[in-house]
Amino acid sequence: MVAPRTIALDAMGGDHGPTVVVEGASISLTRHPAMEFIFFGDERAIAAELEKFPDLAARSRTLHTDSVIAMDAKPGHAMRRGKGSSMWLSIEAVKKGDAHVAVSAGNTGALMAMSKLILRPMAAIERPAIAALWPTVHSECIVLDVGANIGADARQLADFALMGAAMARVLFHIENPTVGLLNVGVEEVKGDEVVRQAHTWLKQTSGLPLDYRGFIEGDQIGQGSVDVVVVEGFAGNIALKTAEGTARQISQYLKDAMTRTWLSKLGAVLARGGFKVLRQKMDPRRVNGGTFLGLNGIAIKSHGGTDALGFASAVDLGYEMAQTGLIERLAADLDTFHHRIDQSAAE
Amino acid sequence: MVAPRTIALDAMGGDHGPTVVVEGASISLTRHPAMEFIFFGDERAIAAELEKFPDLAARSRTLHTDSVIAMDAKPGHAMRRGKGSSMWLSIEAVKKGDAHVAVSAGNTGALMAMSKLILRPMAAIERPAIAALWPTVHSECIVLDVGANIGADARQLADFALMGAAMARVLFHIENPTVGLLNVGVEEVKGDEVVRQAHTWLKQTSGLPLDYRGFIEGDQIGQGSVDVVVVEGFAGNIALKTAEGTARQISQYLKDAMTRTWLSKLGAVLARGGFKVLRQKMDPRRVNGGTFLGLNGIAIKSHGGTDALGFASAVDLGYEMAQTGLIERLAADLDTFHHRIDQSAAE
Repeated sequence: MVAPRTIALDAMGGDHGPTVVVEGASISLTRHPAMEFIFFGDERAIAAELEKFPDLAARSRTLHTDSVIAMDAKPGHAMRRGKGSSMWLSIEAVKKGDAHVAVSAGNTGALMAMSKLILRPMAAIERPAIAALWPTVHSECIVLDVGANIGADARQLADFALMGAAMARVLFHIENPTVGLLNVGVEEVKGDEVVRQAHTWLKQTSGLPLDYRGFIEGDQIGQGSVDVVVVEGFAGNIALKTAEGTARQISQYLKDAMTRTWLSKLGAVLARGGFKVLRQKMDPRRVNGGTFLGLNGIAIKSHGGTDALGFASAVDLGYEMAQTGLIERLAADLDTFHHRIDQSAAE
Repeated sequence: MVAPRTIALDAMGGDHGPTVVVEGASISLTRHPAMEFIFFGDERAIAAELEKFPDLAARSRTLHTDSVIAMDAKPGHAMRRGKGSSMWLSIEAVKKGDAHVAVSAGNTGALMAMSKLILRPMAAIERPAIAALWPTVHSECIVLDVGANIGADARQLADFALMGAAMARVLFHIENPTVGLLNVGVEEVKGDEVVRQAHTWLKQTSGLPLDYRGFIEGDQIGQGSVDVVVVEGFAGNIALKTAEGTARQISQYLKDAMTRTWLSKLGAVLARGGFKVLRQKMDPRRVNGGTFLGLNGIAIKSHGGTDALGFASAVDLGYEMAQTGLIERLAADLDTFHHRIDQSAAE
């Protein structure tokens, strides 16, 4: 295995292809000078972009392919026809050990399906999850699953808790991250049997490498009540998109309010330093990237429409995760937990 | 039946009891001078508040009870012990025809359970839903179910569409409200079998009194893409709470940003007219109140922690719904739809 500093990039993914991917990599490189890159995609298009960034070019290789997964391709179609595509090859580089993490801004469904097929779920995992970084009033938290699957049973939810905790340990440098289970109320009687069973397991199993805080409600996510929020993928995806939509909606309100009268406009000019801070806080590019957790390798999904700064956030995230023994540690955590659950079921 | 202008109020519900309920009613009365009220609860406490509002006192009756449902009571307990409580009696007034709508800021679970038991679901309805008014960049939309039940089958989701459309017709004065089904993507292959079946029915059944627009994602709710958003109660509740939390989080960011430097502070002072408009736009009191749909009578839940202005919004909502033949029209819509579904199943 190479040193955990090589990033495989699907140069053709996303709405803007190599333009954004190459510039994004160059931004990440200034932050993490030890990074190395392998670009997969159209050699000439990539070379044209790399010319603009000689420092990056010096630390990069390009592997040519003509095959690209369309942003609107059905996952099934992408799987049948996508072998040899820039997306496929970047994931395969992780599988082969040529790279430590793959990042793509391409089609989410195809990336998920290919990552599962190529990297395979970890032995103890029935269902991988997509984890999102979510900004809070304090800093950030991790929310999963935000859409890898629809529905989850109690054991899968408990596995999500362990997977999220492993990621939080790496990113937030906390040994026992706090974990909450998203529900329609905080009382023990709330929710269906599945969330209540997961709650019982997480509460009663001793020695888990996390600090389980019980049920939380949707309004506590952004308050930063816990480091890791666990939810099945349908509700998790809807929560994520709803929060994004609400932020956009309030930005629109704010813009309208600040251009209403000349006095508001003048005030907005004077307060522009404050507004700049606000925009940075609300900038979705800061926390760009969903991580596929539960596979034998790390694959990161960047938003398809993001710019170079946003893509760089996704690359940074992958790099930080590659620096640690995330997967090995997670495998050990899952083994311990499943063993205890099976034991208590047998008693 | 009395004229649809009498509102039954649970005077003891909510965190502040008669103080907020009576003042809230007085605010609603200034907007709708034909309103009449029946207050249920502690006679002396209610009288002490009514003294402050002689116009309201002149249009009100009070029916005394000592029994109050605690805000943290379990619904089951409330049902067994709550007969004769202020909440129970206010719903019963609707059942008896003494009032046309009941409003309570009390315990949601208890109010839901009592409303179901006393008013009974409409003949065609398997599951009532809680509908919320949701602010959008244009105006408002209706989202249901936001937590009456966990999970829903395809027919129940389609019923929610009809119930939401009936409410939208009343509140927004649109004959064929637009309806979207909340999902994890807009393509037809997205989601589980339940949402896809509901989608097919809503798309293919002709003559429904609504304009079905297909799947929508969470970020489209606040954009006002449709008048009515349909979702099962677990994800719907999480979406609602997450949006509330995101709004609160951004308010916090904004406050921090505007007090950062003296220039920002000065700017914020000059722009205070704009900020006032923003606060009004974001004011959760404007759209306070969840409506129980699908029962033989109208029961409205106000937020427990709201103030008089927020409670007045819930009373206004109930009054507007009571002015129309909402339930009769909805019963007819449901009959037609179920008949067509059964027909197409038999073909």
